[in-house]
Amino acid sequence: MSSNRDIDALIETMAKLPGLGPRSARRAVLHLIRKRALLLSPLAAQMQAVADTARECLNCGNIGSGDVCDICTSEARATGVLCVVEDVADLWAMERSGVFKGRYHVLGGTLSALDSIGPDELRIPRLVDRVKSEGVTEVILALNATIDGQTTAHYIADQLEGQVTLSSLAQGVPIGGELDYLDDGTITAALNARKPL
Amino acid sequence: MSSNRDIDALIETMAKLPGLGPRSARRAVLHLIRKRALLLSPLAAQMQAVADTARECLNCGNIGSGDVCDICTSEARATGVLCVVEDVADLWAMERSGVFKGRYHVLGGTLSALDSIGPDELRIPRLVDRVKSEGVTEVILALNATIDGQTTAHYIADQLEGQVTLSSLAQGVPIGGELDYLDDGTITAALNARKPL
Repeated sequence: MSSNRDIDALIETMAKLPGLGPRSARRAVLHLIRKRALLLSPLAAQMQAVADTARECLNCGNIGSGDVCDICTSEARATGVLCVVEDVADLWAMERSGVFKGRYHVLGGTLSALDSIGPDELRIPRLVDRVKSEGVTEVILALNATIDGQTTAHYIADQLEGQVTLSSLAQGVPIGGELDYLDDGTITAALNARKPL
Repeated sequence: MSSNRDIDALIETMAKLPGLGPRSARRAVLHLIRKRALLLSPLAAQMQAVADTARECLNCGNIGSGDVCDICTSEARATGVLCVVEDVADLWAMERSGVFKGRYHVLGGTLSALDSIGPDELRIPRLVDRVKSEGVTEVILALNATIDGQTTAHYIADQLEGQVTLSSLAQGVPIGGELDYLDDGTITAALNARKPL
Protein backbone atom coordinates (compact mmCIF):
# COMPACT_ATOMS: atom_id res chain seq x y z
CA MET A 1 0.00 0.00 0.00
CA SER A 2 2.69 2.47 1.06
CA SER A 3 5.41 0.45 -0.73
CA ASN A 4 7.07 -0.20 2.67
CA ARG A 5 6.35 -3.20 4.89
CA ASP A 6 7.05 -1.52 8.27
CA ILE A 7 4.80 1.44 7.46
CA ASP A 8 2.00 -0.83 6.23
CA ALA A 9 2.17 -2.88 9.45
CA LEU A 10 2.00 0.30 11.53
CA ILE A 11 -1.00 1.61 9.56
CA GLU A 12 -2.78 -1.72 9.98
CA THR A 13 -2.31 -1.70 13.77
CA MET A 14 -3.27 1.99 14.10
CA ALA A 15 -6.48 1.29 12.16
CA LYS A 16 -7.55 -1.06 14.99
CA LEU A 17 -7.80 1.82 17.49
CA PRO A 18 -11.33 2.98 18.33
CA GLY A 19 -12.18 6.12 16.38
CA LEU A 20 -9.61 5.43 13.64
CA GLY A 21 -10.23 3.59 10.36
CA PRO A 22 -7.84 2.78 7.51
CA ARG A 23 -8.04 6.31 6.05
CA SER A 24 -7.44 8.20 9.30
CA ALA A 25 -4.75 5.68 10.32
CA ARG A 26 -2.88 6.45 7.06
CA ARG A 27 -3.21 10.17 7.73
CA ALA A 28 -1.99 9.78 11.33
CA VAL A 29 0.98 7.61 10.32
CA LEU A 30 2.03 10.05 7.60
CA HIS A 31 1.82 12.88 10.15
CA LEU A 32 3.90 10.83 12.61
CA ILE A 33 6.54 10.04 9.97
CA ARG A 34 6.82 13.70 8.99
CA LYS A 35 7.39 14.62 12.64
CA ARG A 36 9.26 11.47 13.55
CA ALA A 37 11.89 13.09 15.79
CA LEU A 38 9.34 15.25 17.60
CA LEU A 39 6.37 12.90 17.77
CA LEU A 40 6.93 9.32 16.56
CA SER A 41 9.95 8.38 18.71
CA PRO A 42 8.53 9.91 21.92
CA LEU A 43 5.16 8.26 21.27
CA ALA A 44 6.81 4.86 20.77
CA ALA A 45 8.77 5.30 24.02
CA GLN A 46 5.69 6.43 25.96
CA MET A 47 3.69 3.45 24.67
CA GLN A 48 6.46 1.06 25.68
CA ALA A 49 6.61 2.64 29.16
CA VAL A 50 2.86 2.24 29.65
CA ALA A 51 2.91 -1.30 28.21
CA ASP A 52 5.68 -2.24 30.66
CA THR A 53 4.15 -0.76 33.82
CA ALA A 54 0.37 -0.39 33.49
CA ARG A 55 -1.71 -2.90 35.42
CA GLU A 56 -4.97 -3.09 37.32
CA CYS A 57 -4.92 -2.02 40.97
CA LEU A 58 -5.57 -5.16 43.07
CA ASN A 59 -7.53 -3.04 45.54
CA CYS A 60 -9.90 -0.92 43.45
CA GLY A 61 -9.54 -1.97 39.79
CA ASN A 62 -8.13 1.40 38.62
CA ILE A 63 -5.22 1.30 36.17
CA GLY A 64 -1.90 2.30 37.72
CA SER A 65 1.74 1.40 37.57
CA GLY A 66 2.01 -0.91 40.61
CA ASP A 67 0.02 -3.57 42.44
CA VAL A 68 -1.90 -0.80 44.21
CA CYS A 69 -2.74 2.45 42.39
CA ASP A 70 -1.73 6.00 43.35
CA ILE A 71 -5.23 6.91 44.56
CA CYS A 72 -5.42 3.90 46.91
CA THR A 73 -2.00 4.70 48.39
CA SER A 74 -2.44 8.49 48.56
CA GLU A 75 -2.65 9.83 52.10
CA ALA A 76 -4.43 12.95 50.83
CA ARG A 77 -7.55 10.96 49.90
CA ALA A 78 -10.31 10.42 52.47
CA THR A 79 -10.56 6.76 53.50
CA GLY A 80 -14.17 6.61 54.69
CA VAL A 81 -15.84 7.45 51.34
CA LEU A 82 -15.93 5.15 48.29
CA CYS A 83 -17.16 6.20 44.83
CA VAL A 84 -18.30 3.17 42.82
CA VAL A 85 -17.90 3.49 39.03
CA GLU A 86 -18.44 1.03 36.18
CA ASP A 87 -15.22 1.61 34.32
CA VAL A 88 -11.76 3.21 34.47
CA ALA A 89 -12.94 5.81 31.91
CA ASP A 90 -15.65 6.85 34.40
CA LEU A 91 -13.02 7.15 37.16
CA TRP A 92 -10.97 9.43 34.87
CA ALA A 93 -14.08 11.54 34.18
CA MET A 94 -14.71 11.93 37.92
CA GLU A 95 -11.05 12.86 38.50
CA ARG A 96 -11.21 15.54 35.78
CA SER A 97 -14.00 17.25 37.69
CA GLY A 98 -11.57 17.27 40.64
CA VAL A 99 -14.38 17.51 43.16
CA PHE A 100 -14.26 14.04 44.74
CA LYS A 101 -11.56 13.58 47.36
CA GLY A 102 -12.29 10.03 48.51
CA ARG A 103 -11.32 6.69 46.96
CA TYR A 104 -12.79 4.66 44.13
CA HIS A 105 -14.02 1.19 43.39
CA VAL A 106 -14.13 0.18 39.71
CA LEU A 107 -16.67 -2.59 39.04
CA GLY A 108 -15.39 -3.46 35.58
CA GLY A 109 -18.87 -3.46 33.99
CA THR A 110 -22.51 -3.83 34.96
CA LEU A 111 -24.72 -6.76 35.80
CA SER A 112 -26.30 -8.12 32.63
CA ALA A 113 -28.54 -11.17 32.41
CA LEU A 114 -28.26 -11.03 28.61
CA ASP A 115 -24.45 -11.31 28.65
CA SER A 116 -24.59 -13.59 31.74
CA ILE A 117 -22.53 -11.17 33.85
CA GLY A 118 -23.33 -11.79 37.53
CA PRO A 119 -21.92 -10.16 40.70
CA ASP A 120 -18.91 -12.53 40.74
CA GLU A 121 -17.82 -11.41 37.23
CA LEU A 122 -17.64 -7.83 38.58
CA ARG A 123 -15.75 -6.55 41.64
CA ILE A 124 -18.90 -6.58 43.83
CA PRO A 125 -17.70 -9.18 46.41
CA ARG A 126 -14.46 -7.18 46.71
CA LEU A 127 -16.54 -4.01 47.28
CA VAL A 128 -18.44 -5.69 50.15
CA ASP A 129 -15.08 -6.79 51.64
CA ARG A 130 -13.61 -3.28 51.35
CA VAL A 131 -16.62 -1.68 53.04
CA LYS A 132 -15.99 -3.93 56.05
CA SER A 133 -12.18 -3.90 56.15
CA GLU A 134 -11.54 -0.21 55.33
CA GLY A 135 -14.12 1.21 57.73
CA VAL A 136 -16.13 2.83 54.91
CA THR A 137 -19.05 4.97 56.11
CA GLU A 138 -20.32 6.36 52.79
CA VAL A 139 -20.68 4.82 49.33
CA ILE A 140 -21.54 6.98 46.31
CA LEU A 141 -22.92 4.97 43.39
CA ALA A 142 -21.72 6.90 40.32
CA LEU A 143 -23.00 4.40 37.77
CA ASN A 144 -24.23 5.33 34.31
CA ALA A 145 -27.88 6.35 34.01
CA THR A 146 -28.62 3.32 31.80
CA ILE A 147 -30.90 0.39 32.64
CA ASP A 148 -27.94 -1.94 33.35
CA GLY A 149 -26.20 0.77 35.39
CA GLN A 150 -29.28 1.40 37.54
CA THR A 151 -29.94 -2.35 37.98
CA THR A 152 -26.37 -2.75 39.24
CA ALA A 153 -26.81 0.23 41.58
CA HIS A 154 -29.94 -1.33 43.10
CA TYR A 155 -28.17 -4.67 43.57
CA ILE A 156 -25.21 -3.03 45.33
CA ALA A 157 -27.56 -0.94 47.48
CA ASP A 158 -29.26 -4.19 48.60
CA GLN A 159 -25.91 -5.76 49.50
CA LEU A 160 -24.70 -2.77 51.54
CA GLU A 161 -27.98 -1.74 53.17
CA GLY A 162 -27.63 -0.82 56.83
CA GLN A 163 -23.82 -0.87 56.70
CA VAL A 164 -23.10 2.53 55.08
CA THR A 165 -24.73 5.76 53.93
CA LEU A 166 -25.63 5.21 50.28
CA SER A 167 -26.17 7.89 47.62
CA SER A 168 -26.23 8.15 43.85
CA LEU A 169 -25.44 11.03 41.48
CA ALA A 170 -28.24 13.58 41.04
CA GLN A 171 -30.18 13.41 37.78
CA GLY A 172 -31.38 16.52 35.96
CA VAL A 173 -30.54 19.11 33.33
CA PRO A 174 -26.78 19.11 32.48
CA ILE A 175 -24.91 22.42 32.84
CA GLY A 176 -25.29 24.32 29.54
CA GLY A 177 -28.13 22.00 28.53
CA GLU A 178 -31.12 23.32 26.57
CA LEU A 179 -34.56 21.92 27.36
CA ASP A 180 -35.40 21.67 23.68
CA TYR A 181 -32.61 19.15 23.13
CA LEU A 182 -33.19 17.02 26.25
CA ASP A 183 -35.02 13.70 26.19
CA ASP A 184 -38.31 13.18 28.05
CA GLY A 185 -36.71 11.00 30.74
CA THR A 186 -34.23 13.71 31.75
CA ILE A 187 -36.90 16.41 31.86
CA THR A 188 -39.15 14.14 33.98
CA ALA A 189 -36.26 13.41 36.38
CA ALA A 190 -35.33 17.11 36.63
CA LEU A 191 -38.93 18.10 37.29
CA ASN A 192 -39.42 15.41 39.96
CA ALA A 193 -36.20 16.47 41.72
CA ARG A 194 -36.92 20.23 41.45
CA LYS A 195 -35.27 22.43 44.10
CA PRO A 196 -36.83 25.37 46.00
CA LEU A 197 -35.05 28.65 45.11
CA MET B 1 -6.23 13.23 34.95
CA SER B 2 -5.86 9.43 34.91
CA SER B 3 -3.99 9.49 38.26
CA ASN B 4 -0.88 8.12 36.49
CA ARG B 5 1.85 10.26 34.96
CA ASP B 6 2.91 7.85 32.18
CA ILE B 7 -0.67 7.35 31.01
CA ASP B 8 -1.37 11.10 31.05
CA ALA B 9 1.75 11.76 28.94
CA LEU B 10 0.67 9.10 26.43
CA ILE B 11 -2.86 10.55 26.18
CA GLU B 12 -1.44 14.03 25.63
CA THR B 13 0.80 12.87 22.76
CA MET B 14 -1.95 10.76 21.17
CA ALA B 15 -4.28 13.78 21.24
CA LYS B 16 -1.84 15.56 18.87
CA LEU B 17 -2.54 13.09 16.05
CA PRO B 18 -4.77 14.38 13.23
CA GLY B 19 -8.31 13.09 13.69
CA LEU B 20 -7.89 12.52 17.44
CA GLY B 21 -8.76 14.96 20.22
CA PRO B 22 -8.43 14.63 24.01
CA ARG B 23 -11.59 12.52 24.31
CA SER B 24 -10.82 10.05 21.53
CA ALA B 25 -7.17 9.89 22.68
CA ARG B 26 -8.36 8.80 26.15
CA ARG B 27 -10.62 6.19 24.60
CA ALA B 28 -7.82 4.91 22.36
CA VAL B 29 -5.30 4.76 25.25
CA LEU B 30 -7.74 2.89 27.50
CA HIS B 31 -8.37 0.42 24.66
CA LEU B 32 -4.61 0.02 24.18
CA ILE B 33 -4.03 -0.57 27.92
CA ARG B 34 -6.78 -3.19 28.06
CA LYS B 35 -5.16 -5.03 25.15
CA ARG B 36 -1.59 -4.18 26.09
CA ALA B 37 -0.05 -7.56 25.25
CA LEU B 38 -1.91 -7.86 21.96
CA LEU B 39 -1.91 -4.25 20.79
CA LEU B 40 0.12 -1.77 22.87
CA SER B 41 3.50 -3.53 22.90
CA PRO B 42 3.40 -4.43 19.18
CA LEU B 43 2.31 -0.88 18.31
CA ALA B 44 5.17 0.61 20.34
CA ALA B 45 7.65 -1.71 18.60
CA GLN B 46 6.25 -0.93 15.13
CA MET B 47 6.44 2.81 15.80
CA GLN B 48 10.03 2.51 16.96
CA ALA B 49 10.90 0.48 13.84
CA VAL B 50 9.37 3.12 11.55
CA ALA B 51 10.97 5.97 13.54
CA ASP B 52 14.37 4.29 13.18
CA THR B 53 14.22 3.52 9.46
CA ALA B 54 11.73 5.80 7.66
CA ARG B 55 13.26 8.54 5.52
CA GLU B 56 12.61 10.37 2.27
CA CYS B 57 13.86 8.75 -0.91
CA LEU B 58 16.65 10.95 -2.30
CA ASN B 59 15.51 10.14 -5.83
CA CYS B 60 11.73 10.61 -5.83
CA GLY B 61 10.69 11.97 -2.41
CA ASN B 62 8.64 8.89 -1.43
CA ILE B 63 9.00 7.62 2.15
CA GLY B 64 10.95 4.40 2.39
CA SER B 65 13.46 2.70 4.63
CA GLY B 66 16.69 3.52 2.81
CA ASP B 67 18.33 6.31 0.83
CA VAL B 68 16.39 5.15 -2.24
CA CYS B 69 12.85 3.75 -1.89
CA ASP B 70 11.60 0.31 -2.91
CA ILE B 71 9.73 1.65 -5.96
CA CYS B 72 12.82 3.43 -7.34
CA THR B 73 14.95 0.29 -6.91
CA SER B 74 12.30 -2.21 -8.09
CA GLU B 75 13.19 -3.84 -11.40
CA ALA B 76 9.50 -4.67 -11.99
CA ARG B 77 8.60 -0.98 -12.46
CA ALA B 78 8.83 0.61 -15.91
CA THR B 79 11.62 3.19 -16.09
CA GLY B 80 10.40 5.37 -18.93
CA VAL B 81 7.19 6.63 -17.26
CA LEU B 82 7.03 9.05 -14.31
CA CYS B 83 3.87 9.87 -12.37
CA VAL B 84 4.16 13.27 -10.66
CA VAL B 85 2.18 13.65 -7.40
CA GLU B 86 1.99 16.43 -4.82
CA ASP B 87 2.40 14.33 -1.72
CA VAL B 88 3.30 10.89 -0.35
CA ALA B 89 -0.39 10.37 0.56
CA ASP B 90 -1.24 10.80 -3.14
CA LEU B 91 1.44 8.26 -4.08
CA TRP B 92 -0.12 5.79 -1.61
CA ALA B 93 -3.56 6.44 -3.15
CA MET B 94 -2.17 5.72 -6.65
CA GLU B 95 -0.50 2.53 -5.38
CA ARG B 96 -3.77 1.31 -3.84
CA SER B 97 -5.41 1.45 -7.25
CA GLY B 98 -2.57 -0.82 -8.39
CA VAL B 99 -2.93 0.27 -11.99
CA PHE B 100 0.25 2.34 -12.47
CA LYS B 101 3.40 0.30 -13.09
CA GLY B 102 5.93 3.10 -13.64
CA ARG B 103 7.84 5.23 -11.12
CA TYR B 104 6.88 8.30 -9.14
CA HIS B 105 8.09 11.79 -8.43
CA VAL B 106 6.76 13.44 -5.25
CA LEU B 107 6.83 17.25 -5.45
CA GLY B 108 6.26 17.83 -1.73
CA GLY B 109 3.54 20.45 -2.30
CA THR B 110 2.34 22.85 -4.95
CA LEU B 111 3.49 26.24 -6.19
CA SER B 112 1.86 28.95 -4.14
CA ALA B 113 2.50 32.66 -4.47
CA LEU B 114 0.58 33.26 -1.24
CA ASP B 115 2.87 30.99 0.83
CA SER B 116 5.91 32.03 -1.31
CA ILE B 117 6.55 28.45 -2.46
CA GLY B 118 8.42 28.55 -5.76
CA PRO B 119 9.81 25.74 -7.96
CA ASP B 120 13.00 25.50 -5.88
CA GLU B 121 11.03 24.78 -2.69
CA LEU B 122 9.48 21.78 -4.45
CA ARG B 123 11.27 18.91 -6.23
CA ILE B 124 10.73 20.47 -9.68
CA PRO B 125 14.45 20.98 -10.59
CA ARG B 126 15.06 17.35 -9.55
CA LEU B 127 12.17 16.29 -11.83
CA VAL B 128 13.74 18.08 -14.81
CA ASP B 129 17.06 16.36 -14.02
CA ARG B 130 15.41 12.93 -13.75
CA VAL B 131 13.61 13.32 -17.08
CA LYS B 132 17.01 13.85 -18.73
CA SER B 133 19.12 11.35 -16.78
CA GLU B 134 16.63 8.44 -16.58
CA GLY B 135 15.54 8.54 -20.24
CA VAL B 136 11.93 9.32 -19.32
CA THR B 137 9.58 9.39 -22.30
CA GLU B 138 6.23 9.97 -20.58
CA VAL B 139 5.22 12.14 -17.60
CA ILE B 140 1.74 11.81 -16.05
CA LEU B 141 0.77 14.84 -13.98
CA ALA B 142 -1.45 13.35 -11.22
CA LEU B 143 -1.86 16.60 -9.29
CA ASN B 144 -4.95 17.51 -7.30
CA ALA B 145 -7.76 19.21 -9.24
CA THR B 146 -7.33 22.39 -7.17
CA ILE B 147 -6.20 25.80 -8.43
CA ASP B 148 -2.70 25.39 -6.93
CA GLY B 149 -2.44 21.84 -8.25
CA GLN B 150 -3.40 22.88 -11.78
CA THR B 151 -1.07 25.94 -11.70
CA THR B 152 1.78 23.63 -10.75
CA ALA B 153 0.82 21.19 -13.52
CA HIS B 154 0.94 24.02 -16.10
CA TYR B 155 4.35 25.18 -14.82
CA ILE B 156 5.80 21.66 -15.05
CA ALA B 157 4.27 21.18 -18.51
CA ASP B 158 6.06 24.37 -19.64
CA GLN B 159 9.38 23.13 -18.24
CA LEU B 160 9.18 19.72 -19.92
CA GLU B 161 7.56 20.74 -23.22
CA GLY B 162 9.06 18.99 -26.23
CA GLN B 163 11.10 16.59 -24.09
CA VAL B 164 8.42 14.03 -23.10
CA THR B 165 4.82 13.01 -23.73
CA LEU B 166 2.76 14.83 -21.09
CA SER B 167 -0.65 13.87 -19.79
CA SER B 168 -2.86 14.59 -16.81
CA LEU B 169 -5.56 12.52 -15.07
CA ALA B 170 -8.97 12.60 -16.75
CA GLN B 171 -11.63 14.75 -15.09
CA GLY B 172 -15.26 13.69 -14.92
CA VAL B 173 -17.89 11.88 -12.90
CA PRO B 174 -16.32 9.64 -10.20
CA ILE B 175 -17.27 5.93 -10.21
CA GLY B 176 -20.46 5.58 -8.15
CA GLY B 177 -21.02 9.32 -8.34
CA GLU B 178 -24.53 10.75 -8.62
CA LEU B 179 -25.06 13.82 -10.83
CA ASP B 180 -27.33 15.39 -8.23
CA TYR B 181 -24.45 15.54 -5.71
CA LEU B 182 -21.73 16.75 -8.11
CA ASP B 183 -20.58 20.36 -8.32
CA ASP B 184 -21.04 22.43 -11.48
CA GLY B 185 -17.33 22.35 -12.35
CA THR B 186 -17.21 18.54 -12.41
CA ILE B 187 -20.35 18.31 -14.54
CA THR B 188 -18.97 20.90 -16.98
CA ALA B 189 -15.65 19.01 -17.21
CA ALA B 190 -17.44 15.67 -17.71
CA LEU B 191 -19.67 17.15 -20.43
CA ASN B 192 -16.78 18.79 -22.28
CA ALA B 193 -14.78 15.53 -22.22
CA ARG B 194 -17.74 13.33 -23.20
CA LYS B 195 -16.91 10.08 -24.99
CA PRO B 196 -18.67 8.55 -28.02
CA LEU B 197 -20.32 5.23 -27.08
